[in-house]
Amino acid sequence: MKIALDAMGGDHAPSAIVEGALEAVREFDEVEIILVGNEHAILGELAGKNVPAGRIEIAHASEVVEMGESPMAAIRKKKDSSIKKTVDLVKSGQARAAVSAGHSGVAMALGLLVLGKSEGVDRPAIAALMPTMKGPFVLLDGGANVDCSPINLFQFALMGHAYSKHILGRPDPKVALLSIGEEASKGNELTKEVFKLLKGSGLNFIGNVEGKDIFQGKADVVVCDGFVGNIVLKTSEGLAEMVVKMLKMEIASLTMGRLGYLFVKGALRGFKKKTDYAEYGGAPLLGINGTCIISHGRSTSKAIKNAVRVACDSVKKNLDEVIRNDIAAMQLKIPSIKGGGVAAV
Amino acid sequence: MKIALDAMGGDHAPSAIVEGALEAVREFDEVEIILVGNEHAILGELAGKNVPAGRIEIAHASEVVEMGESPMAAIRKKKDSSIKKTVDLVKSGQARAAVSAGHSGVAMALGLLVLGKSEGVDRPAIAALMPTMKGPFVLLDGGANVDCSPINLFQFALMGHAYSKHILGRPDPKVALLSIGEEASKGNELTKEVFKLLKGSGLNFIGNVEGKDIFQGKADVVVCDGFVGNIVLKTSEGLAEMVVKMLKMEIASLTMGRLGYLFVKGALRGFKKKTDYAEYGGAPLLGINGTCIISHGRSTSKAIKNAVRVACDSVKKNLDEVIRNDIAAMQLKIPSIKGGGVAAV
Repeated sequence: MKIALDAMGGDHAPSAIVEGALEAVREFDEVEIILVGNEHAILGELAGKNVPAGRIEIAHASEVVEMGESPMAAIRKKKDSSIKKTVDLVKSGQARAAVSAGHSGVAMALGLLVLGKSEGVDRPAIAALMPTMKGPFVLLDGGANVDCSPINLFQFALMGHAYSKHILGRPDPKVALLSIGEEASKGNELTKEVFKLLKGSGLNFIGNVEGKDIFQGKADVVVCDGFVGNIVLKTSEGLAEMVVKMLKMEIASLTMGRLGYLFVKGALRGFKKKTDYAEYGGAPLLGINGTCIISHGRSTSKAIKNAVRVACDSVKKNLDEVIRNDIAAMQLKIPSIKGGGVAAV
Repeated sequence: MKIALDAMGGDHAPSAIVEGALEAVREFDEVEIILVGNEHAILGELAGKNVPAGRIEIAHASEVVEMGESPMAAIRKKKDSSIKKTVDLVKSGQARAAVSAGHSGVAMALGLLVLGKSEGVDRPAIAALMPTMKGPFVLLDGGANVDCSPINLFQFALMGHAYSKHILGRPDPKVALLSIGEEASKGNELTKEVFKLLKGSGLNFIGNVEGKDIFQGKADVVVCDGFVGNIVLKTSEGLAEMVVKMLKMEIASLTMGRLGYLFVKGALRGFKKKTDYAEYGGAPLLGINGTCIISHGRSTSKAIKNAVRVACDSVKKNLDEVIRNDIAAMQLKIPSIKGGGVAAV
């Protein structure tokens, strides 16, 4: 299975991306990778490495979208960017999925513009995995749509349900709505409407969950708008970083600090592994015609390898078709949930 | 200075509250406490304790609002609740400030209904303190108002600025808007409007901050609506708890686990102290005529003692008057910022 990988996207590109591609082809037998980007730079990274024969190819792209650029301007101006070509390869059928750790707004917009929305989906959503004591849950939308309608959030729930069931293998995913109190009456105008829709959906809807509950693993799918979702993701990332830093400082300040650190190092490492975004690889953009995985800008080679795994899984399990079917079935059941509204970008 | 303290509110009431009152009168010379609630239960808690003469009195209240009750129904039905009487004592002038760790929705509604909104304030807001590597910042609104207008958020910024300057002693507080990207163009419809208002306000506005930035201490005041604020507060609480639990488990799983824990215990304790909500005591409800401190439901005696300190500080520094003056001055400068809109509840 061919996966197009944006070799120029991310803080550690192209080295971490090329290294991740090598790790992926070594670990996953069925995978072939098309590295998209500056051919010269990519060849430089591959030089001297043990590259399995016929498993990696290069598609040259002359431009790179930088992190600070406005998505729409970057798409208009840079017609030969690595991120654009990565998605184009999926559109033309030369690759089955696209993976990029580059500008997430651009990846999202290109996924939508080039591949198009799935039938029945009003707004594609970013499905981010977050850690809990009992394994990860899916939070969506992770930031694709800032202002949402109740039907948008309802569709996010359906897409998250499909992802949890088919990719994460949860038999009957528990779906929850992120709010500020457990009762149906708690929340803002948006969540109160979504609560009613989810209540009557036949999904395994467990009601509202609060911020403090999500890390206890009460839900498999947590639904919110992209503004709230992005703030939850980034707040969690910032807090986890601060906690580890503060603990290191506290340990260093103890009389037996150095010795103590030797003991704790292993624990900190184990903790990091359990909460590491790199284990999850990347967040799929759900609700488009095709597979597009958006990886963290800081992606290491391991994160890239895992993003390729997520891409493969999504293709093999026909995730976009499953989502289309689930939404069509729900539209038959609740005719007011009609897709085809305004695009996200 | 007399402070009315709801003795029946919170998970550990009345014992932690009564103990907190005793700690407060021992530590703060100018404080006298009126413990409000079931006289028999309070006397039981005081029995055998060293109660400083004339520093603690009891105001009997026959009812208690339970955590699960609907705020409006509880206020309508329980006319003699401890939380109601606590706020009433401020209204009648018998106490200078109210402190409660009970039902926060009820405390908020009573603060608003009994004491009334400050002139020029459309919506009172909960100002919560959050830890960073460089000391705490104020996040508001922490959950008083779920659906907000741009002017509401602008007024939150003014109130947070006053709190940061006069209570936390920051000379020129840096005010930021919580959003999903640093550029003015990033955010939802609400934040984009608020950005413009803050930009032209003359406040030390540092622009948008993202969730990952808030714990780095970039801002002294972080403004958002109460839905987002409550989710940020509770997500942070839940994540910090999970982190400490996971680290303990990781340490226990190490070969030298027990020994390691001895080293780390001090560090975990130091970390906990730095991030402990109990150090901050409680979140003031800003924008009402009077001082009302809303404490965490899980408040320990230390949290209550610190909430009494915050209440005293706010009274001594005339916080509500400062806020009124700041808002009046801003209304002269930007006449479109006109107070007097719809009530929060």
